[in-house]
Amino acid sequence: MNTISLFEPLAAELERVERKMREPAHPEYPQLTAVLSSLLDSGGKRLRPALALLAGQLYPGDMEKLVSLAASVEMLHTATLVHDDLIDGALMRRGNATVNARWSTGATVLTGDYLFARAAAFAADTGNVRVMSIFAETLMTICSGELRQIFDRHNVPHLVTEQAWQEALKQYDTRIHAKTASLFAAATEAASVLGDAPEAGQAALRAYGQLLGTGFQIVDDVLDFQGDEEVLGKPVASDLREGIVTLPVLYFLREHPDDERVIAVVRGEGGEDLVREVVAAIREAGAVNKALERARDIVGQSQAALSVLPESEARNTLYALADYSMTRRK
Amino acid sequence: MNTISLFEPLAAELERVERKMREPAHPEYPQLTAVLSSLLDSGGKRLRPALALLAGQLYPGDMEKLVSLAASVEMLHTATLVHDDLIDGALMRRGNATVNARWSTGATVLTGDYLFARAAAFAADTGNVRVMSIFAETLMTICSGELRQIFDRHNVPHLVTEQAWQEALKQYDTRIHAKTASLFAAATEAASVLGDAPEAGQAALRAYGQLLGTGFQIVDDVLDFQGDEEVLGKPVASDLREGIVTLPVLYFLREHPDDERVIAVVRGEGGEDLVREVVAAIREAGAVNKALERARDIVGQSQAALSVLPESEARNTLYALADYSMTRRK
Repeated sequence: MNTISLFEPLAAELERVERKMREPAHPEYPQLTAVLSSLLDSGGKRLRPALALLAGQLYPGDMEKLVSLAASVEMLHTATLVHDDLIDGALMRRGNATVNARWSTGATVLTGDYLFARAAAFAADTGNVRVMSIFAETLMTICSGELRQIFDRHNVPHLVTEQAWQEALKQYDTRIHAKTASLFAAATEAASVLGDAPEAGQAALRAYGQLLGTGFQIVDDVLDFQGDEEVLGKPVASDLREGIVTLPVLYFLREHPDDERVIAVVRGEGGEDLVREVVAAIREAGAVNKALERARDIVGQSQAALSVLPESEARNTLYALADYSMTRRK
Repeated sequence: MNTISLFEPLAAELERVERKMREPAHPEYPQLTAVLSSLLDSGGKRLRPALALLAGQLYPGDMEKLVSLAASVEMLHTATLVHDDLIDGALMRRGNATVNARWSTGATVLTGDYLFARAAAFAADTGNVRVMSIFAETLMTICSGELRQIFDRHNVPHLVTEQAWQEALKQYDTRIHAKTASLFAAATEAASVLGDAPEAGQAALRAYGQLLGTGFQIVDDVLDFQGDEEVLGKPVASDLREGIVTLPVLYFLREHPDDERVIAVVRGEGGEDLVREVVAAIREAGAVNKALERARDIVGQSQAALSVLPESEARNTLYALADYSMTRRK
């Protein structure tokens, strides 16, 4: 199974989202339209717009507004990628040169800003104040989470007490909420708002998006350790190399709080050989599997949250999407 | 006269705007709250929120929503300054170290993004869809204008025909609309929307903001040539040094389309002596005065636009503010 086949019934709606995102830049400006096309051409699974569309099918409202919401969510995601790649100095994404690989820092910053503005304009096109608030809150959450990640880089938590472990886990959860779950939750909740869903339906869809996004990001963090470098298109343990401690590392540190190799690598003091040694140690200690287990548990909760929603094809697809999130390889 | 004395009757409302802007960052995050305070401490005339408050007094509505709008406009302005300073590599603004002088590129990009999000959240706090649309459109206009400025850098228009002159003037007007006038217009128009002003009132306030902002930016561009470096806090002809052609340069090039000194400086090929020589030539040719004359004409139009609005203290202040924009020295 892959997202493409799951999303086949949504093809017509996803096509409308795509057209909306590709409308010429405002004001008409060929260089900007070209870079936007190239960003959208380079793919992505369109998971976030699909989430909005599926949640919208459960509580149908105005289709044009739902398409605007879906386009807003994906445009916001795209904008964050443009700035992320600049910050990380990434030159390739999904097999294409990044904006910062082609343009100056200034032009890249402004391109990202422009895409944020475009996402805000699409959100405003929904004509719904609550959706606009969700949009703005989510953007604040994403940015403050990224900032926190920058400031927390190279910090090694010393997990010698249960309290320290709980604190570190909470910080990790806050970070992946900001990074991924908040936008998933925004997509499903805002769609339910547009469809005038009852409170319980809105809460269930928000919970589903939040839990699915959390599980999805943990799987990302797991794939970063166990994935195939060729499939992922990036070196293994890319976060660890940047001094970012993800869930598999936390599980390892819980058992080996003073492991000097891990501490050195997180602090950016280890070479390639040490990174490979640490990755092997984390895998062998079962820490990657523990993280995967937690993801499976959380994704199961996301499926349970769906139970209060009307039985429908859309609900089944959301359920299947949660299964997909656990089996994907990239 | 200075803005402070003109804004004295607004002191209480401006204080509410200030408090709103300084609310702790979301989620509570000391480093972010500190940098936000420091940005707001470093001053600025609070011209944009004052414009919103004055326009709001002409058509009074919910004061809390008006305060949110005013805070949104100033926060958006602050966000653009954070990214501008990064792009220009500016280390000081208003006598304080810029964010990019203190933090990494990544942290600076994300701080600006966070402030954009905060501005969007304040706009959403108005609970008005039209205001949200104005906000998003204005942000798109600002970003695409800045991008255009980057790509147009070091281009010297060859003003040998009336058509070339008209085209260059139009491009300049588009750029200063994006840079300054669009946000002035957004502030006054959005305030009139919140106050449920009649169509004619909304159009007049939009026109006033647009024209005032245009005149204001031309005066900025004039001060860049005739101002005192100590008062301005930056070297004379700072735009010209970066290859940006402003109105005084355009008037000079209209008379001397092939002046090799100007062409060299715009292309970034001249040293400090040549820059000083070109500045003197542009002043002596009367080009700076011509630009000032155009600003005076446009600011006069902004005052004329006020005539359809209800006679009031607020209208008088908007009128006086236009006069101030012509007499200011920085």
